Amino acid sequence: MNSFGHLFRITTWGESHGGGVGVVVDGCPPRLKLSEADIQPDLDRRRPGQSRIVSPRMESDTVQILSGTFEGQTLGTPISMWVRNEDARPEAYTEMKTKFRPSHADYTYQAKFGIRAWPGGGRTSARETIGRVAAGAIAKKILRERFGVEVLSYVKQVQRIVAEIDPNRVKFKDVESNIVRCPNAAAAQKMIHLIEKMRRAGDTVGGIVEGVARGVPAGWGEPVFDRLEADLAKAMLSLPASKGFDIGSGFGGILLTGTQHNDPFRARGGKVYTTSNRSGGIQGGISNGQTIFFRVAFKPVATVMREQDTVDVEFRNTTLKARGRHDPCVLPRAVPMVEAMTALVLVDHALRQKAQCGK
Amino acid sequence: MNSFGHLFRITTWGESHGGGVGVVVDGCPPRLKLSEADIQPDLDRRRPGQSRIVSPRMESDTVQILSGTFEGQTLGTPISMWVRNEDARPEAYTEMKTKFRPSHADYTYQAKFGIRAWPGGGRTSARETIGRVAAGAIAKKILRERFGVEVLSYVKQVQRIVAEIDPNRVKFKDVESNIVRCPNAAAAQKMIHLIEKMRRAGDTVGGIVEGVARGVPAGWGEPVFDRLEADLAKAMLSLPASKGFDIGSGFGGILLTGTQHNDPFRARGGKVYTTSNRSGGIQGGISNGQTIFFRVAFKPVATVMREQDTVDVEFRNTTLKARGRHDPCVLPRAVPMVEAMTALVLVDHALRQKAQCGK
Amino acid sequence: MNSFGHLFRITTWGESHGGGVGVVVDGCPPRLKLSEADIQPDLDRRRPGQSRIVSPRMESDTVQILSGTFEGQTLGTPISMWVRNEDARPEAYTEMKTKFRPSHADYTYQAKFGIRAWPGGGRTSARETIGRVAAGAIAKKILRERFGVEVLSYVKQVQRIVAEIDPNRVKFKDVESNIVRCPNAAAAQKMIHLIEKMRRAGDTVGGIVEGVARGVPAGWGEPVFDRLEADLAKAMLSLPASKGFDIGSGFGGILLTGTQHNDPFRARGGKVYTTSNRSGGIQGGISNGQTIFFRVAFKPVATVMREQDTVDVEFRNTTLKARGRHDPCVLPRAVPMVEAMTALVLVDHALRQKAQCGK
Amino acid sequence: MNSFGHLFRITTWGESHGGGVGVVVDGCPPRLKLSEADIQPDLDRRRPGQSRIVSPRMESDTVQILSGTFEGQTLGTPISMWVRNEDARPEAYTEMKTKFRPSHADYTYQAKFGIRAWPGGGRTSARETIGRVAAGAIAKKILRERFGVEVLSYVKQVQRIVAEIDPNRVKFKDVESNIVRCPNAAAAQKMIHLIEKMRRAGDTVGGIVEGVARGVPAGWGEPVFDRLEADLAKAMLSLPASKGFDIGSGFGGILLTGTQHNDPFRARGGKVYTTSNRSGGIQGGISNGQTIFFRVAFKPVATVMREQDTVDVEFRNTTLKARGRHDPCVLPRAVPMVEAMTALVLVDHALRQKAQCGK
Repeated sequence: MNSFGHLFRITTWGESHGGGVGVVVDGCPPRLKLSEADIQPDLDRRRPGQSRIVSPRMESDTVQILSGTFEGQTLGTPISMWVRNEDARPEAYTEMKTKFRPSHADYTYQAKFGIRAWPGGGRTSARETIGRVAAGAIAKKILRERFGVEVLSYVKQVQRIVAEIDPNRVKFKDVESNIVRCPNAAAAQKMIHLIEKMRRAGDTVGGIVEGVARGVPAGWGEPVFDRLEADLAKAMLSLPASKGFDIGSGFGGILLTGTQHNDPFRARGGKVYTTSNRSGGIQGGISNGQTIFFRVAFKPVATVMREQDTVDVEFRNTTLKARGRHDPCVLPRAVPMVEAMTALVLVDHALRQKAQCGK
Repeated sequence: MNSFGHLFRITTWGESHGGGVGVVVDGCPPRLKLSEADIQPDLDRRRPGQSRIVSPRMESDTVQILSGTFEGQTLGTPISMWVRNEDARPEAYTEMKTKFRPSHADYTYQAKFGIRAWPGGGRTSARETIGRVAAGAIAKKILRERFGVEVLSYVKQVQRIVAEIDPNRVKFKDVESNIVRCPNAAAAQKMIHLIEKMRRAGDTVGGIVEGVARGVPAGWGEPVFDRLEADLAKAMLSLPASKGFDIGSGFGGILLTGTQHNDPFRARGGKVYTTSNRSGGIQGGISNGQTIFFRVAFKPVATVMREQDTVDVEFRNTTLKARGRHDPCVLPRAVPMVEAMTALVLVDHALRQKAQCGK
Repeated sequence: MNSFGHLFRITTWGESHGGGVGVVVDGCPPRLKLSEADIQPDLDRRRPGQSRIVSPRMESDTVQILSGTFEGQTLGTPISMWVRNEDARPEAYTEMKTKFRPSHADYTYQAKFGIRAWPGGGRTSARETIGRVAAGAIAKKILRERFGVEVLSYVKQVQRIVAEIDPNRVKFKDVESNIVRCPNAAAAQKMIHLIEKMRRAGDTVGGIVEGVARGVPAGWGEPVFDRLEADLAKAMLSLPASKGFDIGSGFGGILLTGTQHNDPFRARGGKVYTTSNRSGGIQGGISNGQTIFFRVAFKPVATVMREQDTVDVEFRNTTLKARGRHDPCVLPRAVPMVEAMTALVLVDHALRQKAQCGK
Repeated sequence: MNSFGHLFRITTWGESHGGGVGVVVDGCPPRLKLSEADIQPDLDRRRPGQSRIVSPRMESDTVQILSGTFEGQTLGTPISMWVRNEDARPEAYTEMKTKFRPSHADYTYQAKFGIRAWPGGGRTSARETIGRVAAGAIAKKILRERFGVEVLSYVKQVQRIVAEIDPNRVKFKDVESNIVRCPNAAAAQKMIHLIEKMRRAGDTVGGIVEGVARGVPAGWGEPVFDRLEADLAKAMLSLPASKGFDIGSGFGGILLTGTQHNDPFRARGGKVYTTSNRSGGIQGGISNGQTIFFRVAFKPVATVMREQDTVDVEFRNTTLKARGRHDPCVLPRAVPMVEAMTALVLVDHALRQKAQCGK
């Protein structure tokens, strides 16, 4: 329902307008150094208003740790984190009270629950991802400090603009060097221009975020249902606006024959590696020691500044022209979300591996 | 681990060689008419040796229900189903004892568990999916009889051969009218020719299976992590050889702007529908009453009849030429697997919806 | 870990000293009228300082609902509730920094986590139960309004003082008519006198709380592992200071023979009932329509105002005399805890029953 | 539902009459030596017909491992085990088709599911515990070989006959030295006489099984809901015919004051121990390194060879005199069940401890 993970388990809560949003992280190993300073940077990368190409909603998104740490270290008990809602303007959404926004979740929530918090979309708001990003910052820290694993992601494509990026070499500082979070500077320029054009047109645009994990040892993951790629797929498709996931060769791999597609094994110095990586670092659901990389497709944001056909809550045909904040492209803010979900999946599998197969 | 689902929960077990493979289905509603005759047809669609374009392994895959039914009806208690292994030929795999097959899971299982059942790939064998397909047959029956929901799937693409098919109208009998399970007869012919060519060449080929669910009412699914599309993505990426998943407009949708991409709502006779279906029947993680459809990418089968570079269990470079059965294309047999996993996801959400929001 | 329940699932968080304590309730049905006024009364029954026979810690324990409701109704989304810590006096506990309190969890937390929040016992503090009681108030409301089920409990025994009480007839107002929460007035007087005597002596005393659920229809519960009594047993043994649980005839039932112990069925007006209730309302893990009743043994509170042998964190023998607040008897405050846990178990099974066997 | 455990997870299936009963064990560590010979001895201790004081049903209860092992070692994949039903005599139960047996689960299953397998009680039969005992044998082996933990249990009381036994010193061979499984020889004699008397009288008798775990290191268990004693309580109350559980001082402890009840800590040679063990080896939900011991109350078996009042399936008053096999006392066969459930709880917590707090 609103929880994710088995051994490192998060539960998020909160609506767009109301007391705030938050997360409880259960299963965090004890004696990890942790303070708000470890978490805030990723929230800043996620928050609206961070640049001219994302939603202008005014939120500082300042996180507060309410439990689970003592004298700067984790206790092994639940870590509760909370971010207040500040820029709550229900009046900007009054039309949403009576009309369902196209390609949003207003109608489906109403159909499911028979009630919905219409201001700002309530629980359907992307503000829910604050809890994920906060928890993901902890997961990334555990992976880095205890397992030597680096997780990062970046914008790979905006509409038709595709950036060439090597998942084995891309650096975090290059991702963060521009406001669209594409480490290929030339492509980033084009992407920013396109998004700005969309913003001026009151329209929106989608694309692809690529996720990467480096340093994952061979042996993480599970046979059968909880394959590493299956858990990643679920994690990514649980992000708002995501429509697709593929890993390694992915959808493109179907153009190759088996002979072309297979990754030959080679050994060197007592270590096994593959000379190509169409598997994307995972074979049979379990990591093989190579770089894990995958792509997530995000549709164009549904809120456009144009009049659209829709129905009202009485099921009568009508039209709606959005008046809320205009977020022309979700991709720059989706980057920390993809990282967070990747880290949550990996840390869970790292702990499982210790449980079943550890010494 | 080896279980899938929350309220309708399956646990599969078994290796390629050994006592057989099976599944325990927990949470099945009581008083459903059920016998082996409801399950065997889907196993027959999944089994090897069914046509000249799939693996020639000789298995009748005859299912036996060991528990959970009484006088032809389900009891509400666990349904245990078992299929014996018949065509167990460990001698065909002796080279696998000492060498890791490229792009198989031999190496990763060894890295994870420190042991592996090398004959036939053990637990990594596609025989594991027998349990899923058997459980899926029950799930499909529940969906059909108790909820009026129809689940089906078909081969949409083999390598570069793409079939035009309308998810709203495609019929099961058209899917089953040819051995490749593509309901577009012209495309099916080309696909069969391509696969036969691959078989002769000792090579393999991949493609896309499209999954469809019709008649799902608005309101199934969950906000946030257990979104319907997230659970479907996990289900599909848990299938052997799958590399990607997208829903509705999917990866193609990123070429559109928000204005182009949104699905306008219209009302007619007290019912709400959308005039396009780029959402793929799901909005905000919850079904909206339109046809659900999605695609799953399957890579070419890793077992090719050619010599390939690999390493042995002592981590020395060597080569391997497969001697086992040659399965030139997994797609025709993946069709019932995709249906099974789709049905398992949907029936679980149907029961959840009753629990939380039912009368 | 820190979650309880499957379909109505709570996650508690918080330490004795720190940002507060709280709970996230997931799976609550939508459109239930709910505000803090539904929850505060139970927290007031749980809070310290409520009478002269319980802990004098000064806490108002004012609850705040941060999410999951809209215009006075539940949304079906997670309900996050928070209570601040007010009377945090770490200085009262400085000796706990270096010494393990006997029969507390200081030593075992240190052994498990390698760290512990020593002020007030951190996560081991009974303050953790605030989250349970808050969530239980919601569960009780659902049971009452949607299923016609009444949950209540009371003090049945303090040390050797046993009260005669009929679980079929006892009334909530009689439970609340005195500070020890024993509905038998004569016994209550004796209990209060004993507890006051203990308080003056700096010592503590334990006893039995009896839990009751009336109006549960036949058919709630599960065969095998998640039997209703098994889930109740777990719920009760998860309460601080509890040492035992029995249901119906319980430990006393072993003095009878089968012929004496069995509950004969009778029918009247198309309804089945039993003429005795040694089963305690549950047979084979499933409710039979009779009153459910069970007992929970609570040991005397471990914090006594006397010098005791113990060891310090360096594993050296020493002594410790508690200086914190003296709680002579946990029973009056355990009553709402037992009710809360009972309600949480029942509402979860009510929802499961709807899911699997509902129309 | 029909699963138990989180990281070492079992799922049992099967009815009294039908294809048999079985269990799937998921999460077993790899590379454990395992064959049927490790499991059969505990099934033999559980099976009917083993002595003159238990049920005479004729079952060899021969276990078969169908998956999860290879060349005598566990693979880390699911271990499926199966026992056929042999002595299926539905004709002995025809009256059960139309009448509900008092204090059995016939009526409640019918109320819940609207259907029941009446021969032999179907899923409510104690045959279901075969799967638990088989899985428990694996859990005991892991505890013994990998953690140095010994689990055992014995009959402590039959009706009014109470045996004095020291949980710290009792030996398995003394438990197995007589057919009632009470290691105190004098008490055992009296118990056997009483049970034989009951058998002759067509009546039944209950009592107490005590469970013990020695060698559990400090630090297993969880704060809050999944306390070690809470999981043990659930495990024990999930056994057929159990009515109560208490640990350490248990219900008896409420007669002491806190000063009398507390377990003083002492240190010796860098190790911490307690000079008494009223805590029963667990404090705050976590093991403290002392012997864990607890008691489980079992009611007298409900099937008596005498005429009793009951109702039929049409809800009319009638009487019933059992004609099936007469089991005068469940206790000797409950001993391996208690051991199995204890081991399942402990191994699960051992793996959790590795996951969250291991190196």
